[in-house]
This record gives sequence, structure tokens and C-alpha cells, in this order.
Amino acid sequence: MIYLDHAAATPVSKKALAKMLPYFSDEFFNPSSPYLPAAHLRQNYEFAKGQIAHTIGAKGNDIVITAGATESINLAFTAAEGLSGNILILETEHPSVRATARALVENSAKGGKSPLELREIKVDKTGLIDLDDLRQKIDENTIFISVSLANNELGTIQPLAEISEIIEKERSHRLELVKDKKPTSVLPIILHSDASQALNLVDISVARLGVDLLTINAAKVGGPKGVGALYVGRGIKLNPIIVGGGQEAGLRSGTENVPGVMGFAVAAEETKEHLAGNRKKYEKFAQILKNKLQESPIEPLFLGNKKHQLANFVPVCFPGIDAERIIYKLEEKQVYLSTGAACAANKGAKSHVLTAIGLTDSEIAGSLRISLGVLNTEENVKKAGELIVQAVSEEFARVSGDQAQKQESKNA
Amino acid sequence: MIYLDHAAATPVSKKALAKMLPYFSDEFFNPSSPYLPAAHLRQNYEFAKGQIAHTIGAKGNDIVITAGATESINLAFTAAEGLSGNILILETEHPSVRATARALVENSAKGGKSPLELREIKVDKTGLIDLDDLRQKIDENTIFISVSLANNELGTIQPLAEISEIIEKERSHRLELVKDKKPTSVLPIILHSDASQALNLVDISVARLGVDLLTINAAKVGGPKGVGALYVGRGIKLNPIIVGGGQEAGLRSGTENVPGVMGFAVAAEETKEHLAGNRKKYEKFAQILKNKLQESPIEPLFLGNKKHQLANFVPVCFPGIDAERIIYKLEEKQVYLSTGAACAANKGAKSHVLTAIGLTDSEIAGSLRISLGVLNTEENVKKAGELIVQAVSEEFARVSGDQAQKQESKNA
Repeated sequence: MIYLDHAAATPVSKKALAKMLPYFSDEFFNPSSPYLPAAHLRQNYEFAKGQIAHTIGAKGNDIVITAGATESINLAFTAAEGLSGNILILETEHPSVRATARALVENSAKGGKSPLELREIKVDKTGLIDLDDLRQKIDENTIFISVSLANNELGTIQPLAEISEIIEKERSHRLELVKDKKPTSVLPIILHSDASQALNLVDISVARLGVDLLTINAAKVGGPKGVGALYVGRGIKLNPIIVGGGQEAGLRSGTENVPGVMGFAVAAEETKEHLAGNRKKYEKFAQILKNKLQESPIEPLFLGNKKHQLANFVPVCFPGIDAERIIYKLEEKQVYLSTGAACAANKGAKSHVLTAIGLTDSEIAGSLRISLGVLNTEENVKKAGELIVQAVSEEFARVSGDQAQKQESKNA
Repeated sequence: MIYLDHAAATPVSKKALAKMLPYFSDEFFNPSSPYLPAAHLRQNYEFAKGQIAHTIGAKGNDIVITAGATESINLAFTAAEGLSGNILILETEHPSVRATARALVENSAKGGKSPLELREIKVDKTGLIDLDDLRQKIDENTIFISVSLANNELGTIQPLAEISEIIEKERSHRLELVKDKKPTSVLPIILHSDASQALNLVDISVARLGVDLLTINAAKVGGPKGVGALYVGRGIKLNPIIVGGGQEAGLRSGTENVPGVMGFAVAAEETKEHLAGNRKKYEKFAQILKNKLQESPIEPLFLGNKKHQLANFVPVCFPGIDAERIIYKLEEKQVYLSTGAACAANKGAKSHVLTAIGLTDSEIAGSLRISLGVLNTEENVKKAGELIVQAVSEEFARVSGDQAQKQESKNA
């Protein structure tokens, strides 16, 4: 098997799984129980939260554990609940951000107040945020902005620090207005970033990025599925979406998923430790793959931003080829890759990300998302490259043959 | 170690863990991915959902997988969102039901419509629902009723089938009214039950119970933490609380926790298979323990309903004794038990359940929740009984001594 879809899922690392195991059947207590082994478990749990938080430059108390990135994103957006104004998201955001933003806007329309407005910020042809468009769309009523740190289809890394500078400017501007007593109070602007895809290869510091809320996910970095976290900056108020026993400081009720959090902690630390080395490794692998793909009969169009791209992402378009057929062809050779986000692609929807960067429908149909990772070696990347070229060549021959045949029957 | 707190948490069963293991690192794919191993994983996942659903007499498509019981309960209550009228819960419900009901009522007050009203149904001294009180409180504007199948502190099993008969009557009554054209449309009444605590020992059939929504939880039946499910009857409309990629038929987005669901399926099946045997076993163990506890210098007051009680529950009160001190004394002997729900008890809050059944503050302070389970044997239950009696005796001597001393110093 050659797995080229690490953006969709990663195997749980050996170390992470080893750490998790005793917490299923031996250290199985409810961490809220009053006796010593449970109290000990509580300590381990809180320590693990600290380790997770540390990988993004935060403290354990600054993060809320959730059952994955999607829940984390849904929780983040509650910061804008009950407010009036507009919220901005990048037009290339993951379905979880888009759906959450839309649901928030729809719900705001049900209340008595004037509903929230959703504005989408444009990206350029490489998937990079159009900062001028942001400057135009941000205004005195902007309350919430969500920009993923790295896009899940292109791997394009957004300049979060520059974005937060623009927000800082708007904040200063609002304070000036208050001085002049135009409005009597200052609306907040909250910056959220979904860093699920980036945690693996970007050295994240919430302070340096200037974010108020940040989403991370265990399953993308060698941790288990069903565990994520939301970093919550000081002063940011959220409305819990799951209430009950009051766990996670009241922001996320329900008995803690102890094994999951232990696994996430180990995986996050491993990721952080090997970040620089992995970046180099995947850059090399990506280059090998790209060189190989150049040998195909159709010139590959490499997507995303060359300078600002996750090292493990090789999104590529073969114009005129049906990517779905390539995927099925490669599946026979046990090479696994996808056309985009698993949850979106399996509904057969046209990628909104590829539309946003200006690809034609035919180019979108010919696009593959290749994402390298822990299951790749120099060898299997080379082999994968050969098999992709072979599949593209066969498809090219078929399509050309079809066209030639059509031409012939036309001539006849 | 003698563990007497199975209501708070259970170890993952060997079979369940063995089933889960390959899904962490080998079958790790995203079940929404397009290639064969992922499609195979999707099949396994859906099959496991079918197994879980089967244990409550439902089909896989009838359940939504959540990250635990609390989320399942929060999702269930969305059936009442946007409606006007009143909702009824039992006064002894778990904090997750109480908090969710309250949040729903608070949120309803924010909209333009008239807010929902929350009514609590009384229980008798054994924790059993007061059906007359239900008959009085249910009216033409009742839209949602939540009654746990078995209480988490007392183990009292509620007569869900009788409750649903009363609801059925109210439904018929409403249809009569519509015939007479008093209102023009019929308000729904939705019955939800939290069966988290009961799944272990009650043979559940959603049809027989007559519920529209039912919550179950893996962590209470030998499955992993962080996995639960909500049964959703035909025609019941919910508002997803976590939106995004549209998993679980749009009702719960986020990449599926495949290992968790595989483990839940095995644990649920094991539970179902051994249900009758376990019931007998725990009845015997409970009797042994009760007999033993009779030997203490203070007559134990066994709580809950003798006829309608989970076989593994031995909630008991030693009037005049400080249960917290008993717990710490027993902790030294590695006997672990609690005073009530872990999430509530660790905040030092007085049990609302024990208040509801009419216990005095001093009786509540002297109450222990003992819940037997997979980690118990006839031997260790006997031993636990002895150690509890010993601890109670010591406490009794201390308290009596204190009182004698007080009396003496008074006399002097």
C-alpha cells in the first residue's frame, strides 16, 4: 500500500497508542471521582492537556478539549453568538467552518436583533488570502474572522500574523472612535484559525500568530480520531454547545475522553519534536514526486503557493483527465489518494477551493490532492510517482483515442 | 483494589479493546475517503452502528453516534428548539439533562417567541416517578418530556411504558381537539429517555418503551469513553449542534470515531448477551453486601426502589455518619466508592436526587452510592462489606466519643 492522503487521516503513532492503552482498562476511572486513583488520573489528564497546549505556545487551562476539530470550530464560533455585525471567513475554508458560519448567521436571523452578515474574503490563484480584500471587507461592525492556518486542499499557509496586524489596526481605529464618542462602546473583533492541517508542519505559537481562538486536531498528527482542542485566549467568552456536568471549565460537559487526550498529547509532542526534520523530509519527497509527475504526457499543473505551502502537500491538476478515474486506477495498485476533503469529495460536490483559485470545471475534474506523511518513504513516493504517470498516460491515451475515433467517424 | 463505582466508569472489556486496536494504526482511514480500504472501513463502521442499534431494538440508520451521553442528551433536546410550550423532566435527572433543559429554556427566552417553561415531575421516596404529578403537569402545551430509564444515583427504574401511555392519551386528546377545530394543528409531544445507566441491566426495546429519543453510552457498559449514541424515532426532527462535513446524516459532523464505535458495538453486544446472567449475579452480590452492612452499629437505610432497581445498585445511608470520611477511610484500604454522580459530587454540591426523595441534610451527608459490576466477585463484595462496616464502626465510635466528650465537658 502507498498512502498519499495524510490530510484525510493519519495512523495513530506507536508511541501515542502505547500511551493510550493502560487508560482503557486499567486507569479507566472517571477523573471526577473522589478516590485516589481517580485523582491521579485527573492529574495525568491535566498534565496531558498542558502538553497539548504547550505545542501551540499555550497553557493547559487555555485549551478546551473537544471531540475533534469540527466541534472545536463550532465552539469557537459561539464567541460571535448574540452579537450583531458581520463575520468574515476565507472563501476556501473547510466545510466545517463554512457550515458553522452559515448556521450562526441563520440562527442570528431568528432572534429579535438584526442578523449577522457573512462575508467571504477572496484568495489569489495560489490560495493565499487577498489582504486588500480583507482590508476592504473588514469594517466597524466586523466581530469575528476565521482564517485557517493552512488550507486542507492546497496546503497554502496563510499569513496569520499579517492578518492579525490588520485586525489590530481596526481595533485601534475603534478605540479612536470611542474617544471621539461616536459609539459608546467598542465591539470586539475575534480572530479564529483552524490549524488542524498545519499543526504537523508549522511551528505554531498562538501569541506570534495573534489569534484569539485556534483549532487543532489529534487525528491529523498521529493521534486518535475523536479528539481535538480549542485554544481560547484570555477574555474571549464562549457559549458551551454541550452542557451538563460542567467539565472543561463548563465549556464542554461530558466525562473526559482520557485515553484520547493521553494519545493526543504524545502525538502532538512527537509532531513538534520532528517538525523541522519532517518539513525537510517532505520537501524532498514532494520534489521527487513533482519531478516524476513531469514525465507524464500532460504537463502537470502544481497547485497552491510555492513559497507558503505545507511541505507535505502536492495538489496537482492534469488538465483534460478525469481524476476520479485516476483514483480508481491507482486503487487497483494499492495507491490511495483523493480529489479533496474526504467529507466533501464523497458527496461528489465540485471543490469550492479549486473554484476559488480560478480553475475551470475541467481543471477541477482533473485535480488530485496528494498529501505525504508518516507512511511515505523515498522509495514509495518514487513508485507512486511512476504509477500516477502510468495511470495518467493510460487515461491520456484513452481520451486521445476517443477523440481520434470521433474525428475518424466524423471524417468518414 | 475493590471497585464499587461502576456507575461512574467501567473498564473497557478485553473483547472491546481487542476489536478497537486494529482501527487505530492499521484501519486508520477516513471512512469518507474514496478508495477501497476506506470504503471497507465505512462498511465496518455502519455494521457496528447496526450492532449498537440492535441492542436497543433499533436499526443502524435510527441512531446518531455522538461523543458520549452528554452530547446525545444535548442533541435530543434540540427537538424542542424553536417550539413554544412546556418541557417536563424528572426532578432526579442527571446534571446533563437538567443543564440541557435549562439552557434550552434560557435560549428560548432570547428569541421573539414566548419562552419555554420547564416543569419538574416529582418522585416518591424510592425515586419512582409520581405518575399523578405527571398527569397533572402534562397539558396541551407540553412538547418534550425527558425521563431517565434508570436513575444514576439510586438505580430506580422508571416505568417508561406507562409514561408513554399517558403521553399517548394526551396525543389522542389533542387530536380530538383538532377535530373540534379548537387549535388548527397538533403540537408534538416527544419522549426522551437517558438510558446510559440502564443499558447494562435492562433489556431495552425502543418500541416497547414507547420513546422517541433514547440516549446510550459506551463508557457505562465496558466500551470506551467519548462514545455515545442517540436513537431518533421516525419523524423526529433535530437541529444538529455540531455542523460541518455532514456526517451521521447531517446530524453530527466530524470525522467518525471509528475505533470508539467498533469498541462500543462489541461492548453493547456483550452487555446484551450477559444481561440476564449479570442481573442474577449482581442481585446475589447486592444481597451479600446488604446482609453484611446490616452488621454495622448504625442501621443502614437502603435507598431506591426494591422492586424497580438496577440489580447492581446498592445506594445506602448511614444516618449520622459523614460519608466523605467513609470514602477516605476506605480509599486507604483500596476500596473505591462515591457519594453520587462523579461530576456533581466533586463540586461538593448536595445531591438533588437524595433531596428529592426526602432525605434530610444529615441523611444525605451519610449516603454512599455503591454500584457493582464487572470488577466484582462474591469474595471482594464480602470483603468490601466488612471494610465498610469497619469504617462505619470507627466513625460511629469517633462520633459517639465526641458526643460523650461533649457531654462530659458539659457536665464538668
